[in-house]
Amino acid sequence: MSSDPLVIFTPSGKRGRFPKGTPVLTAARQLGVDLDSVCGGRGICSKCQVSPGYGNFSKHGVTVEPDALSEWNAVEARYDEKRGLKEGRRLGCQATVQGDVVIDVPPESQVHKQVVRKRAEAREIVLNPSVKLFYVEVTEPDMHEPSGDLERLRKALSEQWELEKVTADLHILQMMQPVLRKGAWKVTVAVHLGDQENAARIMNIWPGYYEGTVYGLAVDLGSTTIAAHLCDLQTGEVVASSGVMNPQIRFGEDLMSRVSYSMMNPKGADEMTRAVREGMNGLFSQIATEGNVDKNLIVDAVFVCNPVMHHLLLGIDPFELGQAPFALATSGAMRLRADDLDLNIHPSARVYMLPCIAGHVGADAAAVALSEAPEKSEDLMLVVDVGTNAEILLGNREKVLACSSPTGPAFEGAQISSGQRAAPGAIERVEIDPETKVARFKVIGCDIWSDDEGFEEAVASTGITGICGSGIIEMVAEMRIHGIVDAPGLIGTAEQTGSPSVFADGRTNSYLVYDGTDKGGPKITVTNRDIREIQMAKAALYSGARLLMDKFGVDKVDRVVLAGAFGAHISPRHAMVLGMIPDAPLDKVTSAGNAAGTGARIALLNTEARAEIEATVKAIHKVETAVEPRFQEHFVNASAIPNAVEPFPILNSLVALPDVNFNTGGSGGAGGERGGRRRRRKAST
Amino acid sequence: MSSDPLVIFTPSGKRGRFPKGTPVLTAARQLGVDLDSVCGGRGICSKCQVSPGYGNFSKHGVTVEPDALSEWNAVEARYDEKRGLKEGRRLGCQATVQGDVVIDVPPESQVHKQVVRKRAEAREIVLNPSVKLFYVEVTEPDMHEPSGDLERLRKALSEQWELEKVTADLHILQMMQPVLRKGAWKVTVAVHLGDQENAARIMNIWPGYYEGTVYGLAVDLGSTTIAAHLCDLQTGEVVASSGVMNPQIRFGEDLMSRVSYSMMNPKGADEMTRAVREGMNGLFSQIATEGNVDKNLIVDAVFVCNPVMHHLLLGIDPFELGQAPFALATSGAMRLRADDLDLNIHPSARVYMLPCIAGHVGADAAAVALSEAPEKSEDLMLVVDVGTNAEILLGNREKVLACSSPTGPAFEGAQISSGQRAAPGAIERVEIDPETKVARFKVIGCDIWSDDEGFEEAVASTGITGICGSGIIEMVAEMRIHGIVDAPGLIGTAEQTGSPSVFADGRTNSYLVYDGTDKGGPKITVTNRDIREIQMAKAALYSGARLLMDKFGVDKVDRVVLAGAFGAHISPRHAMVLGMIPDAPLDKVTSAGNAAGTGARIALLNTEARAEIEATVKAIHKVETAVEPRFQEHFVNASAIPNAVEPFPILNSLVALPDVNFNTGGSGGAGGERGGRRRRRKAST
Repeated sequence: MSSDPLVIFTPSGKRGRFPKGTPVLTAARQLGVDLDSVCGGRGICSKCQVSPGYGNFSKHGVTVEPDALSEWNAVEARYDEKRGLKEGRRLGCQATVQGDVVIDVPPESQVHKQVVRKRAEAREIVLNPSVKLFYVEVTEPDMHEPSGDLERLRKALSEQWELEKVTADLHILQMMQPVLRKGAWKVTVAVHLGDQENAARIMNIWPGYYEGTVYGLAVDLGSTTIAAHLCDLQTGEVVASSGVMNPQIRFGEDLMSRVSYSMMNPKGADEMTRAVREGMNGLFSQIATEGNVDKNLIVDAVFVCNPVMHHLLLGIDPFELGQAPFALATSGAMRLRADDLDLNIHPSARVYMLPCIAGHVGADAAAVALSEAPEKSEDLMLVVDVGTNAEILLGNREKVLACSSPTGPAFEGAQISSGQRAAPGAIERVEIDPETKVARFKVIGCDIWSDDEGFEEAVASTGITGICGSGIIEMVAEMRIHGIVDAPGLIGTAEQTGSPSVFADGRTNSYLVYDGTDKGGPKITVTNRDIREIQMAKAALYSGARLLMDKFGVDKVDRVVLAGAFGAHISPRHAMVLGMIPDAPLDKVTSAGNAAGTGARIALLNTEARAEIEATVKAIHKVETAVEPRFQEHFVNASAIPNAVEPFPILNSLVALPDVNFNTGGSGGAGGERGGRRRRRKAST
Repeated sequence: MSSDPLVIFTPSGKRGRFPKGTPVLTAARQLGVDLDSVCGGRGICSKCQVSPGYGNFSKHGVTVEPDALSEWNAVEARYDEKRGLKEGRRLGCQATVQGDVVIDVPPESQVHKQVVRKRAEAREIVLNPSVKLFYVEVTEPDMHEPSGDLERLRKALSEQWELEKVTADLHILQMMQPVLRKGAWKVTVAVHLGDQENAARIMNIWPGYYEGTVYGLAVDLGSTTIAAHLCDLQTGEVVASSGVMNPQIRFGEDLMSRVSYSMMNPKGADEMTRAVREGMNGLFSQIATEGNVDKNLIVDAVFVCNPVMHHLLLGIDPFELGQAPFALATSGAMRLRADDLDLNIHPSARVYMLPCIAGHVGADAAAVALSEAPEKSEDLMLVVDVGTNAEILLGNREKVLACSSPTGPAFEGAQISSGQRAAPGAIERVEIDPETKVARFKVIGCDIWSDDEGFEEAVASTGITGICGSGIIEMVAEMRIHGIVDAPGLIGTAEQTGSPSVFADGRTNSYLVYDGTDKGGPKITVTNRDIREIQMAKAALYSGARLLMDKFGVDKVDRVVLAGAFGAHISPRHAMVLGMIPDAPLDKVTSAGNAAGTGARIALLNTEARAEIEATVKAIHKVETAVEPRFQEHFVNASAIPNAVEPFPILNSLVALPDVNFNTGGSGGAGGERGGRRRRRKAST
C-alpha cells in the first residue's frame, strides 16, 4: 500500500514502503540491505544498530518526524544501561517503523563491511568470512518425536537462518549435548559456510549468546621467514601480527638447496615438512599469546607460499620442482583441515591454500595478484615481487602474464662481500657526493646520515655492520651515476673515477664505503664481484619483465608495483638507474608492501575472493623463462647498467648517466660471468 | 540407418542398430547396458567379457551369422594366452559389430551385479560400491602449459570416465608424483565417488593397470561382540569374516551399566571409547590377516550398532541415553574418515554409520530394516532383533513402526541359575517326555540327544556346562506344554506334575535337567526364579510387539522374522508356546540370521542403499515404550505363559496347553515380581 511509511536506508539508497510496526531489521532484510545480526532479531547481540535521521531530507524527498520510529523500548534501555548505546543509535530489531524515515546503517553494522587498507590505490577488502556466528533457539528433545540434538540444532539453523544441510564436526558432537543443556537450548554456533568440496559445518558451539568472536590466520610462508596476521573474522581487524624465521633454513638457505637436500636425503622432505610445521605452530602460539586469543578460536587459516614451500608444508616431496618440466603435484587451491597439517589451532579449523600459477610461480604470486588485481587494472601494470626468486606479473583488464626469474639472494644481501640481511646496523641508503665522489649513508635503526653531526653516537648501539639489499642497489646505482662504475659494470681506478674511495683490489678495483677497523668494526667495501652479483640479479629481474612485455606486445608499461618487504625499501630512482625495472615515470613506481601477505588476508576475510583468484590464476598466461630463447638475449642486454640496448628515455630525462668505459681491452663485460646461479636450474633442464 | 546391424544384449533385452565396426563395449555403453570396464576399452582389464550367440534367435527375430563379430584380434589372443579367456567369450572392447548379433553379458561382467544372498526370501544386493577403480592415461607435464599433475589426472578422469570435480586426499598428493612416472603416465586410481557431504576423492593410486581390488568392512558392533565381514568391493564377495569380544565388557556387561560407568567416572566414556576402538583395530588386523589383505586396501567401512555403542565409538558421552528423554547427540547417518575414529585401515578410508531410529533403537535396528525391508513388504511383517534390548519393527508398504523393549540378558543365558552363553557344552535343545516327564536334551558341539547311545562319549570333550538362551526357552516351553509349569509361571510339585525331575527348592519347586555331580560336573536345574526371569524377558518382548500392533491397528501379523544370532536358534514353536511372539502360522516364523550384519553389508556394497535406509528411517514411526501406558498393561498380560488375555488361536490349534494351576492361594503370579530390570530405565524416566 502506498500509504505505508517509506523507509530509506543509507548509504545503500535502498527504499521501500512497510506497514507501521515493521521492525527496521525486517525492513532491511526484505530490501536486501546489508544489516548485521547474530541473534536473529532477539535484542541480544546489538549488531543491528542503526542511526535514524530526522528532519527534512530534500535529496530523498521525505521529512522525517520525531516519532517516525517507535519509542525507545525496554530491550534497548536494558542494552544501553548494560553496555551503552551510542548517541542517536537504535537497535534495528527493536525500533519499528511508524512513519517515513531515513535510516543510516553505520559501517560496523554492515555484514559485508569494508576492511580498511592502508594504501589508497589498493583494492577494497569486503568482509565475507568463511565462518560466521549464529544464535539459535533449539527445540527440546521429545520422546514422542525422537530425533538427535544435532538434527534439532540443524532444524533451528534452517528455520532461523536459512542455513541448509549443515553438518557438524565430530568434536562438536562430542561436546554439544552439555552445551545445549547449559544454554537451556539457546546456543551460539560458529558455522563454516562450506565451499566447493565441503558442506557447511558447525565449527564451535557456546551456551546462550556468545559475546566473543572467532579468528583466522593469514600466513605468508616464505623461504626465510614465516609471517602471520591474526584477524577477527567478525570485524576483519588484525589483532596481532608476528613472524618467525623459517626453521627449514638449517636445510638450505635458498629453495634449490632445500630441494637438493630432499634429493640427497631419503627422509629429507619429511624432516623439512616437520620443521616448517613446527615453526608454524611456534608462530601460532606466539601470535595467539600476543593477541590474547584462545587458539581453539582460530577456525580458519589461509596460506600463501612459493611452490617448494607449498609442497613441503603439505608433505609432498618437492623433487619434481627441482628439474624440468617443474611439475607441481597440484596447482589448484587446497582446502584442508588444520589437523591434516598437524597445526595446533582449532582441530578442524579450515585451511585454504591459494592456487599456484606454475612450477616456479606459486601461491604467493597468486596472492600478490589477488592483492594488486592487475586483471582489474585499466593501465598496464607490472608487479614485481622481489625475493630469491622474483615473481613477475604483467597485465591489465585484457590479460595477465606471469613468470618467475631466479634473481638469487643478492638482493637480500647474500653473496655480497659486505652484504647482510636488513637489520639494525646495515647500510640501507647511500649517496655519493658529486664533487668528492665519497659516499655518505644511513643505517637501519638510525635516522641521520653518516656525515650528520651526532652520527657516531646515534649508531653506537647498533654499529655499522654491512650493506643490506636496498643499500647495495643504491650503492651500485650511485656509483654508476657518478662515473665510478661504467655501463658494462667495471669499477674504474681512483684516477679514472676521481674518487679517493676507490682502491685497487687484486685484478679489479673496489670502493670503500666505510672503514670501521680503527674502532674494531668492519671495512665495508663494494667489490667488482659484488657489482657482478647485482648485475646478474637485476638482469634476471629485468629480463623476466621484458620477456612478459614481449609476450604482451608492448615496449613500455604504465606503472610498476614493487611488492615484498624488500620492494618497500627500494628507491625507484636507483632501481631504474640500475635497469632493474623497465623505464617508467618515477611517480608510477610504487611499493605494495607485503602484497602476498595482503592477498592472504583478503582470501581469509572474503571467501568470494577465493573463487575469484582461482579464476584469475586459471586465466593467467604462464611464461616459463627457462625455455624462452629471448630470455637469454634480454639477460645479456640487461647485464649492462642500465641496459645495453633499451633506451630508458624517462630515466635519461631525469639523470644523465656519464658515458664512461673502464675496459682497457679484453672482454670484461658482465655477460661473460653470467649464469653462475642460473646454472643450478639450467643444469637439470 | 536401418541397414546397420542390429545388436541385442541379453539378459537386459536392450537393442539398437550400430554402424559396422562399432566395438561391442561402445554399443553397450550407448544403450546403457551394464557392462563393466576398468581400463576404459583399452584391452587391458578384461572386465568387459561378453558371450556372443550364433544361429537363429526366433525370440529376437534375428539370425546371427558366424561372422557377426569381427575376427579374434591380437589383443584378445594375447589376453587368452596370458590369462585364458573362457570358451566362447570375447572382449567387448575388441570385438566389433559386423552383422546382426545377440550378445549375452555374463553376471561377472556386469557392474551392478547381484551379490548372492543365502536366503531366498531376502532382498537382492546389487553391487554399487562407494569406491571404484579407473584406469587412466594422463597427459605429461609441459612447461608451456604448466599445470599440476593432479589437475591433469583430474582432466583424464573427466575426459576418460566423465568423473567431474574429483579431489584427492592429501596422502595421495604425497605419493602421486612417483607413481605417475613409474606408470609412464598410465595409472589406476581408486575413486570414492562422493556423497551428500563430500566431493569425489581419489583414495589410492597404482602405476599402470592395477590387477588387484579394494576392500570394505561391514561391522556389526554389538555390546558383547564385534563382528566384521571383509568384502571385495569389485565382486561383493566376503573374503573373510571374524569377530572379537567387545573389550568394553570390563566396564559393564550390559549397556546401562556402561552408561552408569560413564556417569560415575569422569573419564569413563573416554576409556570406553578407547577400548572399543582398540578392540576394533585388533579385529581389523585379524580379519586382514585371515583374508590376506593389505589393510591399506580397506577403503570403506560401514558400522551398525545400538545407540550407546554408536556414541561410545564416536567418542560421545552416552550420558543422555541413560535418562529420559533419551536424546541422541545425532540420529542422522554419519560420514567420517577412518582417522577420525583412530581406525588402522586406509588412513582416509570412508566410514559410514547408519542412522539411528531413536534413543533406544539404533543403527543396528536400521540395518535390520535395510536387510529385511519391511517397508517393501506386501504382508504385515514383524521383525524382532533379540538381544539385551529387543528392537522391534512392524510394518508393510503402508508404514513401519519401531520400538525397543528392555528384555534384559536372560535370553543370553545371564541371570538364569544354570544359564550360560551359547558355547560348546551348553544345552541348546530340550524335549520333555510326555509319559515320564523327564527331559532329554542336546548340547552345543554334539549332534545326538542325551538319551541316544554314545552321548557320554560324544560330550566328553565339552562336558555339559549349563543352559544357553535357546535352551532355556525350549525348557520353559516344554515345562508349560507338559504341565510342569502353569500359566502364571509356578512350577508344580513332583506330585502335582507327576514328574520325578521336580524337587522342592526352598519355598518353590525346581526342575532337574541334568545332574553331573557324580562326574564332578554341575547340577543343571530350572528354578522358579529362572522361570520368572524368562517370563519378564518374553513379556517385555511380546508387549513391545503388541504395542506396535495396537499402533498399527491390527490384532495379528502375517509373518514374524527373528533376527540376531539368537533368533537363528530359537524354535518358533517353543517361542510361541512361551508367548514371546504374537500368534502366527509356524511356517511364517523365520530366522533372518544376523540381519544387522547383513544390513551393514548391503550399505557397504550398495551406496544407493544408504540414501534408501536414511529415507526409510526418517519415515519410520518411533514408539517409546517407556511412556506408553498400554505397554504396562501388555506386559502384565504377557507375563502369563503364553498370555493372560490374548487367544493365540493358531498356537492352540497346534498344541493343547494343559489347564493347570499350582497356585494354592496368595498372589504368586508373575506380575508381582516384574520390573526388576526395568526399574533401572524407569528410575530415571
